[in-house]
Amino acid sequence: MKYSDLYKKTLLNDIIPFWENNSLDVENGGYLSCLDQNGKVFDTDKFMWLQGRQAWTFSMLYNEVEKNPKWLEIARSGIDFIRKYGMDEEGNFYFSVTKEGKPLVQPYNIFSDCFAAMAFAQYAKATGDREIRSLAKRTYHNILRKKDNSKGIYEKNTDIRPLKGFALPMILSNLVLELEDVLDKEEVERTIDYSIREVMEVFLQKDSGIIYEFVRPDGSLSDSFNGRLLNPGHGIEAMWFMIDIGARRNDQNLIEKATSTILNILEYSWDREYGGIYYFMDAQGKPLQQLEWDQKLWWVHLESLVALAKAYEHTGNKKIGEWYGKVHDYAWSRFPDPDNGEWFGYLNREGRPLLTLKGGKWKGCFHVPRAMFQCWKSFERIENNGK
Amino acid sequence: MKYSDLYKKTLLNDIIPFWENNSLDVENGGYLSCLDQNGKVFDTDKFMWLQGRQAWTFSMLYNEVEKNPKWLEIARSGIDFIRKYGMDEEGNFYFSVTKEGKPLVQPYNIFSDCFAAMAFAQYAKATGDREIRSLAKRTYHNILRKKDNSKGIYEKNTDIRPLKGFALPMILSNLVLELEDVLDKEEVERTIDYSIREVMEVFLQKDSGIIYEFVRPDGSLSDSFNGRLLNPGHGIEAMWFMIDIGARRNDQNLIEKATSTILNILEYSWDREYGGIYYFMDAQGKPLQQLEWDQKLWWVHLESLVALAKAYEHTGNKKIGEWYGKVHDYAWSRFPDPDNGEWFGYLNREGRPLLTLKGGKWKGCFHVPRAMFQCWKSFERIENNGK
Repeated sequence: MKYSDLYKKTLLNDIIPFWENNSLDVENGGYLSCLDQNGKVFDTDKFMWLQGRQAWTFSMLYNEVEKNPKWLEIARSGIDFIRKYGMDEEGNFYFSVTKEGKPLVQPYNIFSDCFAAMAFAQYAKATGDREIRSLAKRTYHNILRKKDNSKGIYEKNTDIRPLKGFALPMILSNLVLELEDVLDKEEVERTIDYSIREVMEVFLQKDSGIIYEFVRPDGSLSDSFNGRLLNPGHGIEAMWFMIDIGARRNDQNLIEKATSTILNILEYSWDREYGGIYYFMDAQGKPLQQLEWDQKLWWVHLESLVALAKAYEHTGNKKIGEWYGKVHDYAWSRFPDPDNGEWFGYLNREGRPLLTLKGGKWKGCFHVPRAMFQCWKSFERIENNGK
Repeated sequence: MKYSDLYKKTLLNDIIPFWENNSLDVENGGYLSCLDQNGKVFDTDKFMWLQGRQAWTFSMLYNEVEKNPKWLEIARSGIDFIRKYGMDEEGNFYFSVTKEGKPLVQPYNIFSDCFAAMAFAQYAKATGDREIRSLAKRTYHNILRKKDNSKGIYEKNTDIRPLKGFALPMILSNLVLELEDVLDKEEVERTIDYSIREVMEVFLQKDSGIIYEFVRPDGSLSDSFNGRLLNPGHGIEAMWFMIDIGARRNDQNLIEKATSTILNILEYSWDREYGGIYYFMDAQGKPLQQLEWDQKLWWVHLESLVALAKAYEHTGNKKIGEWYGKVHDYAWSRFPDPDNGEWFGYLNREGRPLLTLKGGKWKGCFHVPRAMFQCWKSFERIENNGK
């Protein structure tokens, strides 16, 4: 089977039906994301990250794959739930709520806001809904307003060792393209410039060619637990955001730099004993605080497949092709659950499922379908070009 | 070798020298707890939990083992550091500070206060220092004042699903005995009554005979991630606190109930495939949020050895004897590092070291020496009684 067909068929015949059949909360609206191996709901808490991500996914499918009214209706249910129950009075997004929408965990996490903004923008694109469009814009500006103190009153770190995180500039580089229809042109270009600079010049290290998760405000490195932390999946995911920006701007230099960074990170973080990409590493090889450091996570491997497919599409780099094969073989032989559908999320170092859930607090309807869609389209272009 | 000798020799010839040789910060005072496999300092952040715990350990050794002036001096260095740099203006203890004592992480975690209080009380007992004694008392009362909202402004949970945690009543049941010299007699007895009630009647479940980590304020169970959470090591550790209380009060019923609870928890949480006690479990067998759930931790196994030794000492229960043998064989063949000293902290499910550190953010000079001391003394009494 051609890769494009593999990804397309898996997306449309396995992944999407899994979420359509199992995750819809017909009583309260929104989605139930805590699904066990068989797709059965095992907990009803709603994590706002995952509400936003699933509403985004179904809006995106409607916009990019097929004008399927069922998909739009699924997206609408999530958008309505998020609007009604997702925000506090200042427009900050709760981390989690009960199935009925009562707030459980306060808005300490700005990524809830990021995924809500993405969802609003895709849904507005699908429907032309002006109110949702302006909500997307408002949410985006609230993110920018909060970005230098994103945890607000819940920040437990003092100002003795200020560090800035990679996650936010990385997300912004994708978010700004997602919100392109919603924002002013000048603002889009300015934010793209900012995120390229932060990602490729501040967090990407010139000497090692890998990306750190935290740096000092002036960009220098901090010899501390967070200052030594590497999150290889984050770095690789950010590189396909950079390739998208490079393709949009016809900036082949940016694409080449992102491509070599993908190779650097994979070389650094591949487990040579059991295969797969480590979840966390210490840049000096010191012991980590993260007990889950050696686990193999679904999103890390899916984002790597997307990054490798896009890098191959735009460069034809042979080493990228080889790495694609290696990551493909590892991931496709371990993560999918052919008996029950969808992918396992959490493998132990040896590559066996550590938790059998298909969705939970952090895993929802997002990385799997997005990667399937991105790889499908990328391989379609590669195959059509005969590369 | 007799068990009492094994524990005594390991404590005095391996564990204590390891911390004496590697962890003392002669420049700034206090202790460096981030020690790699060889005992080399790999990070200099100071976690207040571990400052308090190490100061407690050396004060306790001085009080209970030998009036060794070197041990008292090591304790003093930690006590001075904690007094100077450990507290904010209201007497709450920071979570971590730099090696020089500058606050890094705010006082969001009440267990820093608990271990500081324990350290102050043991040190006051060793030295007769009245100021430290009153500091112990003040810290204890501050803990009681905060106990129903222990995270204060850093609490991210709303009041929609109030749950109370097992950790605090469990710690209190040990803390109150530690502070017996410092507190009024009536307060000690009242707190013991309270903690027995909370531990043995509220968190210990009548039907299953196991202990839950969180319950509703009225003691009923909550079908939610935290409401289903089991922390077997916590439950077993609390049972030796109960046995200590039972021995102090000549309450054989309490000792028997604690003994059968140890058996229940071990039966429930023993990994029948690879051996060892799971770190976390879900009471309904559902997927957990804790990615580290199947790991085997040093403290869980050491606290189990203490609990089993004490239960055996006071009941002679044959099943307890069998379980002691099983946990002993598992733990003593995997956790100790004969080449470099001390015990590994974190094994993966299969029982191999997942991190090679001897000390870090959570592991310091506490569970290993305390368990060695407790097992030494317990087996000494068992062996002398010819049981």
